[in-house]
Amino acid sequence: MADASAMRRALELAMRGPATGVNPRVGCVILSPHGDVLAEGWHRGAGTAHAEVDALSRLAPGAAEGATAVVTLEPCNHTGRTGPCAEALIQAGVARVVYAVADPGDHSAGGADRLRAAGVEVTAGVLADEAEAVLDDWLFAARHRRPHVTVKWASTLDGRAAAADGTSQWITGPAARADVHRRRAAADAIAVGTGTVFADDPALTARTPAGEFFDAQPVPVVFGRRPVPAEAAVSRHPHAPVFLEGADLAADLHELQRRGIRSLFVEGGPTLASAFLAAGLVDEVLVYLAPALLGGPRLALGDLGVATIADAVRLELAAVERLGDDLLVIAHPRPTEGN
Amino acid sequence: MADASAMRRALELAMRGPATGVNPRVGCVILSPHGDVLAEGWHRGAGTAHAEVDALSRLAPGAAEGATAVVTLEPCNHTGRTGPCAEALIQAGVARVVYAVADPGDHSAGGADRLRAAGVEVTAGVLADEAEAVLDDWLFAARHRRPHVTVKWASTLDGRAAAADGTSQWITGPAARADVHRRRAAADAIAVGTGTVFADDPALTARTPAGEFFDAQPVPVVFGRRPVPAEAAVSRHPHAPVFLEGADLAADLHELQRRGIRSLFVEGGPTLASAFLAAGLVDEVLVYLAPALLGGPRLALGDLGVATIADAVRLELAAVERLGDDLLVIAHPRPTEGN
Repeated sequence: MADASAMRRALELAMRGPATGVNPRVGCVILSPHGDVLAEGWHRGAGTAHAEVDALSRLAPGAAEGATAVVTLEPCNHTGRTGPCAEALIQAGVARVVYAVADPGDHSAGGADRLRAAGVEVTAGVLADEAEAVLDDWLFAARHRRPHVTVKWASTLDGRAAAADGTSQWITGPAARADVHRRRAAADAIAVGTGTVFADDPALTARTPAGEFFDAQPVPVVFGRRPVPAEAAVSRHPHAPVFLEGADLAADLHELQRRGIRSLFVEGGPTLASAFLAAGLVDEVLVYLAPALLGGPRLALGDLGVATIADAVRLELAAVERLGDDLLVIAHPRPTEGN
Repeated sequence: MADASAMRRALELAMRGPATGVNPRVGCVILSPHGDVLAEGWHRGAGTAHAEVDALSRLAPGAAEGATAVVTLEPCNHTGRTGPCAEALIQAGVARVVYAVADPGDHSAGGADRLRAAGVEVTAGVLADEAEAVLDDWLFAARHRRPHVTVKWASTLDGRAAAADGTSQWITGPAARADVHRRRAAADAIAVGTGTVFADDPALTARTPAGEFFDAQPVPVVFGRRPVPAEAAVSRHPHAPVFLEGADLAADLHELQRRGIRSLFVEGGPTLASAFLAAGLVDEVLVYLAPALLGGPRLALGDLGVATIADAVRLELAAVERLGDDLLVIAHPRPTEGN
């Protein structure tokens, strides 16, 4: 079996692993010197064997001598709950390692170097694009040391999130709200500030228009220093809420990544959304624009620390969708904005 | 010639008249009792003969006896700079009058009644849709006793028109600016508040991207009480600026209509745009949205007098266009909003 065919099989195996959590989905195929498949393995989540070790464990001692290990992610060089895979491959006598994507981990990278130092032949980058697609949000989080951050708000065309008296239900229509809930369900976590908890008491669950829970529910994250009352709706969320101070958003995000949160959906309010934007910690902006005007003081975004036009947070428009009567504008901060 | 064929010819004749000004474009065909064309006429602008009188003037005395006059607009019943057309048709002995659209004028309507009272047979509504299209903005202004009002602003996605220090050039890109200038050229007049004159000193001309003037230039209108200095750029506009107080916008608009302004393009700033919206005197909203965020206090719209969400100015989305990196949202206030 050629490298690419084996890698394609390894990617299939990787997909059997869990799509969320701290660890990535990884698959591994062990080939004999003649290219026959000796064993297959994949990672089943944190605390279980890595894909390489899982595959090796299916072989009799000595059976991997001179073999090729084809693995979707660079073998780790890290002793965590399991030993380093690079070491396991060396010990098993594997002669050659083929992998798709380099390990971007803080502690786990360096496996390829260790293998080479032990005389193992290493080939990197086979089906790298396909493997990147499989690893996707895990890879983003590992590379950036934080979850992928989407900031969402709903406003009128003049940028207001509520009328002067604070009323805001409903600025946008049912199609826009349904879209928000679908995106909640697709995110690992959903964030609000304590101001929003006190003002709106949101449930932070992902629900169908009929009010039923989606199978996947985002972990609720509340930013702020004010203690949230025990009777708040968020306390009844299927996942225990995570409380973070919000004084150092970069550190808070890193903490979320360490907990296995790969994507964060920041729902508001204006203070939290503005803080993420001002800190340059936003990867995607979703603006649900209602065809209405409100005027007045209740803005969807507050201060961004922008003093002059040259310092504007410039975005790249990715898409504009009509959702019922509303518009959804999807945009990405330009790289110069600190991302 | 049947009524419809004669009306189609009358509409062609109408189009020879001027597209702007106080008076509408009107055409007239005089048919013999057998349906032969006896004469044609059209209106050449305020102070010249109306279409019916223009057509009759081409006939020998008595030649219109028993004839049918086919005219695109209900013959007027008003003695202005010219005599009432209804009277002229009666005097000429016309037996039948066919028209497309009723005259919505304050003083000029009632021609059909007068004709009928004199024993003339009257048929209304022939090719009414086509005639409405020809009369278009004149008819709008005549019916509403004011110009058609478009309010335009450019803002970032968060509704800001400038950064905290007031800088705003350029929030939107060249394609959006070119679109604005094309729309300026298509409007009879362009309005700003004195605040914008003092802040930006705009020329209020319609120019090509190369800086050349379009053939048609909108009349500049400045709303406000502060006297505009003689050296302001607007003073060098090809048309003399019109200065209006802005304390009673409905009255000011009526004054503009009396001066022959059929369409007004309100360019800003926030105070003037908000005042037009709060007064329910807006027919079309154009929002040029730049993919950028500014935060801070400089908003594209100020206060609209909306206290609670139920009183939001609700709009109907007409179109969303991409102009370079920017978006143009075109919307119309819903009829319940006082229009």
